[in-house]
Amino acid sequence: MTDAPASRPSPGEDVTSMSQDPGHVMRAEIAEQPDVLARVLDLALPQVRSAAAVIRERDPRFVLFAARGTSDHAALYAKYLVEVHLGIPAGLASPSTMTAYGARPDLREVLVVAVSQSGGSPDLVETATASRECGAIVLAVTNAPDSELARVADLHVDVHAGTELAVAATKSYTAELLSLWLVVDAWRGGDASAAYAVPEAARSHVGRLAEMTSLAQRYRFTDRMLLTGRGYSYPTVREAALKLMETSYVAAHAFSGADLLHGPLAMIDEGHPVVAVVPDGVGGTAMRPVLERLRERGLDLAVIGGPASTPFGTVAVELVHGLPEDLSPIADIVLLQQLALAMATGRGLDPDSPRGLSKVTRTW
Amino acid sequence: MTDAPASRPSPGEDVTSMSQDPGHVMRAEIAEQPDVLARVLDLALPQVRSAAAVIRERDPRFVLFAARGTSDHAALYAKYLVEVHLGIPAGLASPSTMTAYGARPDLREVLVVAVSQSGGSPDLVETATASRECGAIVLAVTNAPDSELARVADLHVDVHAGTELAVAATKSYTAELLSLWLVVDAWRGGDASAAYAVPEAARSHVGRLAEMTSLAQRYRFTDRMLLTGRGYSYPTVREAALKLMETSYVAAHAFSGADLLHGPLAMIDEGHPVVAVVPDGVGGTAMRPVLERLRERGLDLAVIGGPASTPFGTVAVELVHGLPEDLSPIADIVLLQQLALAMATGRGLDPDSPRGLSKVTRTW
Repeated sequence: MTDAPASRPSPGEDVTSMSQDPGHVMRAEIAEQPDVLARVLDLALPQVRSAAAVIRERDPRFVLFAARGTSDHAALYAKYLVEVHLGIPAGLASPSTMTAYGARPDLREVLVVAVSQSGGSPDLVETATASRECGAIVLAVTNAPDSELARVADLHVDVHAGTELAVAATKSYTAELLSLWLVVDAWRGGDASAAYAVPEAARSHVGRLAEMTSLAQRYRFTDRMLLTGRGYSYPTVREAALKLMETSYVAAHAFSGADLLHGPLAMIDEGHPVVAVVPDGVGGTAMRPVLERLRERGLDLAVIGGPASTPFGTVAVELVHGLPEDLSPIADIVLLQQLALAMATGRGLDPDSPRGLSKVTRTW
Repeated sequence: MTDAPASRPSPGEDVTSMSQDPGHVMRAEIAEQPDVLARVLDLALPQVRSAAAVIRERDPRFVLFAARGTSDHAALYAKYLVEVHLGIPAGLASPSTMTAYGARPDLREVLVVAVSQSGGSPDLVETATASRECGAIVLAVTNAPDSELARVADLHVDVHAGTELAVAATKSYTAELLSLWLVVDAWRGGDASAAYAVPEAARSHVGRLAEMTSLAQRYRFTDRMLLTGRGYSYPTVREAALKLMETSYVAAHAFSGADLLHGPLAMIDEGHPVVAVVPDGVGGTAMRPVLERLRERGLDLAVIGGPASTPFGTVAVELVHGLPEDLSPIADIVLLQQLALAMATGRGLDPDSPRGLSKVTRTW
């Protein structure tokens, strides 16, 4: 399989009608991520720094994230960064409280961060607009600098992922993750230096497609999967589950390691696989009792993780990129995107054209 | 099937070894809910009122909820109440940021509400303790007045559900919902009057077990389900999915109506059922485009809802209790608890003894 330029659709072309190479659009966009991430460091960083300067000046007491779908997982990642690195309490907004129920909360001293690939979802635009009226400072993080969301926000960061054609978002997700990491880093006065290792780490994971294709073969006939991770890796498993659902139609569930033990564990038996994402670090240490419990249950467990955790797995996918725990998710999701891609194509499905979905979802 | 008192276990007795009437413990606790809810109004309300008086005095700018599993769904319900009725921004805490990552955020002017049936989960106790040190006022809502969580909090509300024996929490959930509704109501100066209709509404739903058993027969052979709701009913479908997972081992997914259209919809085909919970009201109106989309897709759709929404369903379960939208979830979940119970017993499983689970989950 090649990704010859001639087979790549141009923007605006109907990708859903192309099926001679199922998944080629998604595969190309996954492979583009190292370049996209380098572009974020080049092109988004100046905008990030000026946004962060304004935010520091305003000194918010609280951060609320507003997002949907894949971008909601980027927001969840950023929530951990804000709480751990900045010591500022943060939450995920329920857009419907403002858009449907008409709530107008007191948002003075609140930073609202709206994350959206397209910047076009009406509920996020309305949430951003209403949040400003309620006293918040609003930062939009989008892949669409000319979007309505970018226009109505106080501050905007363009994640520079380039036009994304696959319905299953990949490169816009990692570009959002890195942009949000850079915002938090600049906010706390960092120099972004740790982030310069991310593009190469992502490149090393792009190079592991064969390994993920082999794992996908193991999962050829499962109709459900359970994914688990904790801390910074919890958004990774949430996003991986979404990719699996939308491309392979597998009933994939993601739970934080802690919540897993509160009920969902019963759903999984020896006939269905579990995937744990456990990079070394604090989150990995906190996952140890969960891995032990999964092992006790005799489940088929793939551990994508550091050397301290992979021995718990029936299958081990070692993370060797050397990124610190808080940057690891930007590279790690690349492996899971490739797993979803390979599972879909291995089942004869075209992940570029999932049933029942379109690229921009408009919700109110 | 009867619930003869002689077959009911006494507290402390090992319920997991009883299987001559699978699910009898869960069934009895579901049926007990009207009485439990009346007890909340009698016994919890005075404690609620004094807690609310202290909270009003402190006048928090932000509310953070900390909870796991079923109680996390009660917290999500309360998040909507706080945002819509009080106009105070709210979020769900990720306990690991404090317990594992050691974050010590600035929590002055923040109310932390820790919700837990047992009051014994070490991560919640630590979150409550650390939150107080960080300047928060901490309210514990538990079914265990002598618990560690109740002890370390500034304020405590005992939900008075009585000893809960089934692993799948039912009566403690609805007792938490009503207690949290009463806290928000008292906080905004309400007289709790609307809540007095809740016990009878729950009783009318307990009386619909046969209808839910019939729905469970329709679902006898499905291995996955998708549930959806919006606004106040989103926690209802999250909690229903958890009950289905832990008792029937069905791969049940719950999505807010808005998020559903961002990917997960692809996972469901004509071979798997969808359940929408759509009481009349703002959330129901916001669900209209979602119901239309599900109908377009030709899916098997059960609508548990008001007369404006049930015509969209292949199966209609009409809500006739007349409760306002924000109280409806306390009664509505009773129907779904019974669906989970009937699906489990219909499959020859004992929901009182789910595989791999125990009643008190200790997570760090």
